[in-house]
Amino acid sequence: MMIVMKEGATAEQIDAVVERVESVGCSAHLSRGELLTVIGAIGDRDRVASLGLEGAPGVDHLVPILKPYKLASNEYRRGERTVVEIDGRLIGGDHFATIAGPCTVESREVMIDVARTVRDAGAQLLRGGAYKPRTSPYSFQGLGEAGLRLLAEAKQETGLPIVTELMDVRDLEPVLGVADVIQLGARNMQNYTLLTELGRAGRPVLLKRGLSATLEELLMAAEYILKEGNPNVMLCERGIRTYEPSYRFTLDLMAVPVLRELTHLPIVVDPSHAAGKRSLVEPLSLAAAAAGADGIIVEVHPCPDEAICDGPQALYAESFADYLRKLEAVAELAGKTLAAV
Amino acid sequence: MMIVMKEGATAEQIDAVVERVESVGCSAHLSRGELLTVIGAIGDRDRVASLGLEGAPGVDHLVPILKPYKLASNEYRRGERTVVEIDGRLIGGDHFATIAGPCTVESREVMIDVARTVRDAGAQLLRGGAYKPRTSPYSFQGLGEAGLRLLAEAKQETGLPIVTELMDVRDLEPVLGVADVIQLGARNMQNYTLLTELGRAGRPVLLKRGLSATLEELLMAAEYILKEGNPNVMLCERGIRTYEPSYRFTLDLMAVPVLRELTHLPIVVDPSHAAGKRSLVEPLSLAAAAAGADGIIVEVHPCPDEAICDGPQALYAESFADYLRKLEAVAELAGKTLAAV
Amino acid sequence: MMIVMKEGATAEQIDAVVERVESVGCSAHLSRGELLTVIGAIGDRDRVASLGLEGAPGVDHLVPILKPYKLASNEYRRGERTVVEIDGRLIGGDHFATIAGPCTVESREVMIDVARTVRDAGAQLLRGGAYKPRTSPYSFQGLGEAGLRLLAEAKQETGLPIVTELMDVRDLEPVLGVADVIQLGARNMQNYTLLTELGRAGRPVLLKRGLSATLEELLMAAEYILKEGNPNVMLCERGIRTYEPSYRFTLDLMAVPVLRELTHLPIVVDPSHAAGKRSLVEPLSLAAAAAGADGIIVEVHPCPDEAICDGPQALYAESFADYLRKLEAVAELAGKTLAAV
Amino acid sequence: MMIVMKEGATAEQIDAVVERVESVGCSAHLSRGELLTVIGAIGDRDRVASLGLEGAPGVDHLVPILKPYKLASNEYRRGERTVVEIDGRLIGGDHFATIAGPCTVESREVMIDVARTVRDAGAQLLRGGAYKPRTSPYSFQGLGEAGLRLLAEAKQETGLPIVTELMDVRDLEPVLGVADVIQLGARNMQNYTLLTELGRAGRPVLLKRGLSATLEELLMAAEYILKEGNPNVMLCERGIRTYEPSYRFTLDLMAVPVLRELTHLPIVVDPSHAAGKRSLVEPLSLAAAAAGADGIIVEVHPCPDEAICDGPQALYAESFADYLRKLEAVAELAGKTLAAV
Repeated sequence: MMIVMKEGATAEQIDAVVERVESVGCSAHLSRGELLTVIGAIGDRDRVASLGLEGAPGVDHLVPILKPYKLASNEYRRGERTVVEIDGRLIGGDHFATIAGPCTVESREVMIDVARTVRDAGAQLLRGGAYKPRTSPYSFQGLGEAGLRLLAEAKQETGLPIVTELMDVRDLEPVLGVADVIQLGARNMQNYTLLTELGRAGRPVLLKRGLSATLEELLMAAEYILKEGNPNVMLCERGIRTYEPSYRFTLDLMAVPVLRELTHLPIVVDPSHAAGKRSLVEPLSLAAAAAGADGIIVEVHPCPDEAICDGPQALYAESFADYLRKLEAVAELAGKTLAAV
Repeated sequence: MMIVMKEGATAEQIDAVVERVESVGCSAHLSRGELLTVIGAIGDRDRVASLGLEGAPGVDHLVPILKPYKLASNEYRRGERTVVEIDGRLIGGDHFATIAGPCTVESREVMIDVARTVRDAGAQLLRGGAYKPRTSPYSFQGLGEAGLRLLAEAKQETGLPIVTELMDVRDLEPVLGVADVIQLGARNMQNYTLLTELGRAGRPVLLKRGLSATLEELLMAAEYILKEGNPNVMLCERGIRTYEPSYRFTLDLMAVPVLRELTHLPIVVDPSHAAGKRSLVEPLSLAAAAAGADGIIVEVHPCPDEAICDGPQALYAESFADYLRKLEAVAELAGKTLAAV
Repeated sequence: MMIVMKEGATAEQIDAVVERVESVGCSAHLSRGELLTVIGAIGDRDRVASLGLEGAPGVDHLVPILKPYKLASNEYRRGERTVVEIDGRLIGGDHFATIAGPCTVESREVMIDVARTVRDAGAQLLRGGAYKPRTSPYSFQGLGEAGLRLLAEAKQETGLPIVTELMDVRDLEPVLGVADVIQLGARNMQNYTLLTELGRAGRPVLLKRGLSATLEELLMAAEYILKEGNPNVMLCERGIRTYEPSYRFTLDLMAVPVLRELTHLPIVVDPSHAAGKRSLVEPLSLAAAAAGADGIIVEVHPCPDEAICDGPQALYAESFADYLRKLEAVAELAGKTLAAV
Repeated sequence: MMIVMKEGATAEQIDAVVERVESVGCSAHLSRGELLTVIGAIGDRDRVASLGLEGAPGVDHLVPILKPYKLASNEYRRGERTVVEIDGRLIGGDHFATIAGPCTVESREVMIDVARTVRDAGAQLLRGGAYKPRTSPYSFQGLGEAGLRLLAEAKQETGLPIVTELMDVRDLEPVLGVADVIQLGARNMQNYTLLTELGRAGRPVLLKRGLSATLEELLMAAEYILKEGNPNVMLCERGIRTYEPSYRFTLDLMAVPVLRELTHLPIVVDPSHAAGKRSLVEPLSLAAAAAGADGIIVEVHPCPDEAICDGPQALYAESFADYLRKLEAVAELAGKTLAAV
């Protein structure tokens, strides 16, 4: 932590800061410039932060130097990338995977139908929501446990591993019964209760970036899971909130190469929710793959006009195989091998 | 819902949309302009929304006309404002109240000390966190149930009602044992599990606006609570995320008069977290009162330099009475009476 | 324009709005719902807007239906895309082009050196700034007319058309003397003086999106140029301002497919300025091409460490040909032919 | 400037950075932590910045320590605040002033009428636009020089100093003929041509913050004017762009106390443009005064429903005196004396 003193800071004020830094077992290192003094507090970042020096006499501002996340950082794995294995499918490192399926589980017929389409086209994992976070209390909230049972059937039918969302810690047991990957939604990215329980559960996690979460906050949320001993965390960019009114969310594809420089964890992109519109899903998917994403999670439906939820953004099942071929071609150009099945 | 058709939409496409609108029991009303046609779908907003017409052939975009929240709207109460009563203290309508206390409950001594300061200065409610949502898993996470016991002691000692945060639905029982108002933090504004349980619990709720929540989303979160039969919801503006790097969050004081035009619920402002810096707390508090806020929630500490958490933004206990006098003077200029004790 | 009346609007208030709409030669069309009435004002958008009905008694809010831009819209060209020709190079429609060069013109030697690298690798146009908009008055502001002369030399030497920025309307004449495309910087996107003069000058324009301009505002800025009779406008996405502190700007690649649905004008992406960092430029360039961009404008320097301006984001000249091969491969996958030379 | 090296930076990389820092006449000061090394570059910020060290081998990132603005900083005036005098009216320091008038000059009758209202109510300056920046090329662009003549008449009639906007450097002469304060609009905040010319012209400037300008960028824009020898710069907060769709712009009142800690220049707030709606103007004005603003610029019209431009946000002339009394009462509570006339 660097502590930048004000231009007029007195020797007493500087000494007082040094003393407080040393009082928590850190060492202080002075750098006197022409106009002002900077104190480097060397040692544990959290202990220096706990001193609350921002308000102290003579202090202008603090500049953190060390990153606040440890286990999620590239330094921790010395540059080796995490490859998550889900029932034989690989994601991360050089391995690219596609997760596809309906937004929400709505009926046995649709679920099995989509599952077959997704498998036949060559996608690696099947998605589907049994619990749906909805802005309105008057909207359909998902089939719940009945939805989980349909996911289990689809898995048995197609052999595809299942990705599904957990919203309430009290539903952890039934979700663990069917999910190969547990998705944590954007609105729950800083739900520390859920993060900790998912860390303990040990099942792979697809952690979606919050609507206005910084990359650092996303990595700190991952750190909550990693800290409990679960190394299988995949990060998911799904659009952030900006001033632009033309889209639901602004898909932040810069996050892909920037996260790659910060963390060893796989990076997945969800183009469907930001777009909210089918025609944008393909160009955004290709762009994500070109930017270096390790995977895509995308919505597919046999008859989007009749979907209960988010139909306008779902790809038509009949065109999914074509879409997947283009996506894989771009991923290969970006240096990926296709995930083994 | 108005459905705006594309310029080149055909008669067949228009008919198809009309048919689908009528299929869910709504009526369709055509408005043909020189360049394009707009279809007014008259009837239940949610049913029309569930049709997913955004992607339908010939449709350009949809414009919602009715607000998605009902119980939270000014129309629902026909202009009458909600006044929440907490053990004799009133907030909302013409009544202004101040909620003050330490960021986090840290020790018996500090808690009782602050509680007395707050009561003696004339504030109406006492705040203090036993469960703390922290960005880092390595930071202090609150005293938990031990913290709740200290809050109960402070209440007994001073007679002040208690405002404290709930983070995990599994802690609801112990929190109900001491809290007169349950705070829902910004990161949990769209935690639908917690919203629903707080609606059922019936205790007054202080609902903080999410870091990037729109006013409509804030009111929809309130709707989750109201829908379960709990009318005592107070909204809290605490700063939003913008591009400006000079502050932790940008306190959005426009939300105060705009929310007043949308909802009957009381509006509280938290200047401490956005500021992150003591010197900004007073001007922002006065500004909030001048903008028409129904209350302020603010952090006070006898010795901020030694606070475990957020010391730099806490007001000094010794200057709190002066601060409160100025705040009340501005609130009176803005048309408020001071909350009865 | 749809005028949404308040729930309690009286018949008199509705009549008054209808009368005002008709007073400017538009017709009014009533749509009465269960709760409220919507008035469709049919006719010229700008004339209805000029009535300032937002504040009128009984009016809740206005919803514009027609887009405010005309010449820039896809409807205006009935779906045909604009292809800009610059001295034989094509950009737009199926044609992809790369514009490359140093950030700023700094010396004869560097300028000629980069120009040759760019030409030999196969890029279509040469960029270089003689006038530089700088946040600080203490920073290097460009070589001015001396820089223009060096650009003219580079053009003569390599045959590449020149793209350079105009900042001050008083410099229009000298810039017209050398520029094949005049760039209008992000900070000047709403400099109506410059937009109008560039419309009159008739030279192709590369119009950069403002740091927080909406797509609609970008198209309205283009409309200023088009309205003066200059059809050769290329739009350029170069990063927008968001809350995320990890990047200089957030490159908004959603703008590419969304603009394509709104306008016939070519869409260029500048990955260098948003990234501010060389390692991000290639993945972002590939992503832009995959998203359907019609061109890329990118910074290249023989010795970035010694560049006067923005060296850290410039590609090394020695790796530029490799970069261009990958970029072209992705553009072809996205359906482009490479621009003819 | 602090240069933070990567964790794995080698001794050679550190030495190379030190050498480059010293090569521009600065001294380098090493601070070795447990995990990484920080190099303090002591000396001129701009010279270190010009080295472009962000991309250099082993460098993780750079942290500027010194503020980039000098003349605008509080340190430059050693805490003394700038008080701008405009024909006997004072603004800044303890002096509060109100600037009022129509959005745009539209007719002799309205202009003189508003001018008398504004003077009689006790406002200090008269505003009115002859040149109007408009998003659409099809909107009314102002009366131009005819508008300036009407402003001159209003000044002669009432004795009020005039605040009016300059958009095009070629209009500087006629504007100097009537303006006591020249307004630079938000879209021109980084129009370096205009900034420099206004610095040379010497007339007081009201500099509006750009739609997404940081406070640092606003101060750098002021620095352009100050550097040319014109000390009379007033900063104006007028709303920034955020994700919130309920308002035109989000009025950033945190900017008021924060700017006060950064700069000695007077701070004015424009509540009209952010609100876009009359009912919000009074609460936002009071909030701005309570936050410590040195002045308010507000729109008033005798008959807003007939205003050519922005009528819905204009205060009614008949209620302006009442508004001004409340505003002055809050300003006094916030410690201001009212500006002398």
